[in-house]
Amino acid sequence: MSLLDDTIARIAAPDERLRAEVQRKLDAKTKPPRSLGRLEDMACTLAAIQGTAAPKLLRKTIVVFAGDHGVAASGVSAYPQEVTVQMLLNFANGGAAICALARHAGAEVVIADLGSRVAPKHPKILDRRIAAGTKDFTREPAMSLVEARRAVEVGIEIALRLADEGCTLLGLGEMGIGNSTAASAMTAAFLGLPPEQVTGRGTGVDDAGLQRKIAAVRAALERHRPVATDGLDVLHKVGGFEIAGLAGVVLGAASRRIPVVMDGFIATAAATAAVRICAPAAGCLLPSHSSVEIGHRRLLDALGVRPYFDLEMRLGEGTGAALSISLLEASIRILEEMATFESAGVSKG
Amino acid sequence: MSLLDDTIARIAAPDERLRAEVQRKLDAKTKPPRSLGRLEDMACTLAAIQGTAAPKLLRKTIVVFAGDHGVAASGVSAYPQEVTVQMLLNFANGGAAICALARHAGAEVVIADLGSRVAPKHPKILDRRIAAGTKDFTREPAMSLVEARRAVEVGIEIALRLADEGCTLLGLGEMGIGNSTAASAMTAAFLGLPPEQVTGRGTGVDDAGLQRKIAAVRAALERHRPVATDGLDVLHKVGGFEIAGLAGVVLGAASRRIPVVMDGFIATAAATAAVRICAPAAGCLLPSHSSVEIGHRRLLDALGVRPYFDLEMRLGEGTGAALSISLLEASIRILEEMATFESAGVSKG
Repeated sequence: MSLLDDTIARIAAPDERLRAEVQRKLDAKTKPPRSLGRLEDMACTLAAIQGTAAPKLLRKTIVVFAGDHGVAASGVSAYPQEVTVQMLLNFANGGAAICALARHAGAEVVIADLGSRVAPKHPKILDRRIAAGTKDFTREPAMSLVEARRAVEVGIEIALRLADEGCTLLGLGEMGIGNSTAASAMTAAFLGLPPEQVTGRGTGVDDAGLQRKIAAVRAALERHRPVATDGLDVLHKVGGFEIAGLAGVVLGAASRRIPVVMDGFIATAAATAAVRICAPAAGCLLPSHSSVEIGHRRLLDALGVRPYFDLEMRLGEGTGAALSISLLEASIRILEEMATFESAGVSKG
Repeated sequence: MSLLDDTIARIAAPDERLRAEVQRKLDAKTKPPRSLGRLEDMACTLAAIQGTAAPKLLRKTIVVFAGDHGVAASGVSAYPQEVTVQMLLNFANGGAAICALARHAGAEVVIADLGSRVAPKHPKILDRRIAAGTKDFTREPAMSLVEARRAVEVGIEIALRLADEGCTLLGLGEMGIGNSTAASAMTAAFLGLPPEQVTGRGTGVDDAGLQRKIAAVRAALERHRPVATDGLDVLHKVGGFEIAGLAGVVLGAASRRIPVVMDGFIATAAATAAVRICAPAAGCLLPSHSSVEIGHRRLLDALGVRPYFDLEMRLGEGTGAALSISLLEASIRILEEMATFESAGVSKG
């Protein structure tokens, strides 16, 4: 059996009995029932995913995958394509936003290159390059089906290694000039929506750039007709190597009962691909923020998750995932540290 | 000059030049301009309040003030009145939600009793009792004007002491059975809104309890006719000792350029009272969450601040303020730790 098929076979749904058990524990704490709202839900969900009434977030890792996109040649980004590799080096040297926010969250960052045009050399960058960027999907499929599967398996391999090392939470991060155009094409394919309803300004293109993005998405969909229910088909035709890799991280994590915090639009497109490959993988997904990108909220709605906050962010890299870690840890503090009405001698209502 | 008048005289507006200077620094970092959205605003606002282009959040303190409310006799709460003191002891013993969340945020908790019915004895509870609870404001003013001023000055004194000790951020927390009814009456008075538009279920009263709350608020407003533009008048007629104390914390903090993170409905009512006492005090206020209480969002709108998140919380105690600290610190990490396009050798768009 292939690594992908073997991983899919191991994915089980969260344990809803544990969700209810943790809610009962929380209801005994010195606060009106449910008065911490969604913070209580977080603890319950972590328990259901991890398969224990005493969930833990000890070792947290943000995986940041990078890749280049052939569609960048169509003028869909506000930045030149060499920025993908320049930012990979910035991640490795600790100067990017995700580096600062991961340090703040007490999370480590694992950086992997799944398909940059020119491989950067740095000991902190895992070289998992499938190819030197995707093809321009307005003309031909972004990658072959074999490459899509291979990229997904790279993500699975990394998730399984991190699981073996004791990781208890994974966050999804990405970098790739042009990848919000890929995410828009994937979203249009998955949700059956017209390109203009799922395509935004990414890193900040002007009106003409936005029109080029929408045209590129439309051209790709008309040429390739990706199959909405087939995650690998969508990845192969209009995805990206880093996006396919993140889909694999979701599958690998789900197979080991590790919660996965999504980030912005591109990471959520990757998570959606994972769910189209294996529906029960949805059970391990946690939201973070709602980004400025118009397609993001639609993907979250389709996944049935509500974001925890909206700070009008649109950077990616895993920055929203990193900011969510403190909230998730707070939910566990409540579960572990609060007194009960009985232990504190507080009268019930 | 009284402590209150002296404090008011020292309150200045935030320095908007510093806000702009910090935004320029952020625009040089390796990210598309403004792509971290409101996280960038947080760093700018902290700079403007603290009066430095290098804002710091080193020592953080949540002040939790407690007091009892005469209106509790009208059956406006889901919990018996003795819970105020029981919870004060729970705060002191570290078992309450705010204790767990403050530890998580790396913040200390300062607990003060401004007016419980029966004084608890605990070395960690500051005894600053003005009286044994407020009067039932459906019949007579909650407290005298002298008492209101004294409670505000207690808050100022505590804020000034914390400022002297090096505190760089204050969060507002409160406890007091019946105090969401007081906050509703204050909100109706400040905003000129009918009671039913600003009165919610607090800790969780049933439909009959909600009607009793609305009736109590209406009776108080009709009897006392508090003056919307006069913060002390509103506090004296329909406030609470802990609420007046928190208004004083805002004024004291504002006089020392210390940012104040508001919490839920009651803390935000206190902050609004501070602003009605001294309008420029609004400059030091930071939001946290939007609570379930219907009056909360109206107060935030009137203050002109947008909450950072909505997790459907309704506990108070400073729990929302504590959760916001990690976000505010994250904004400073970005400012301090991110590389610039120049230093990282990343091409600009």
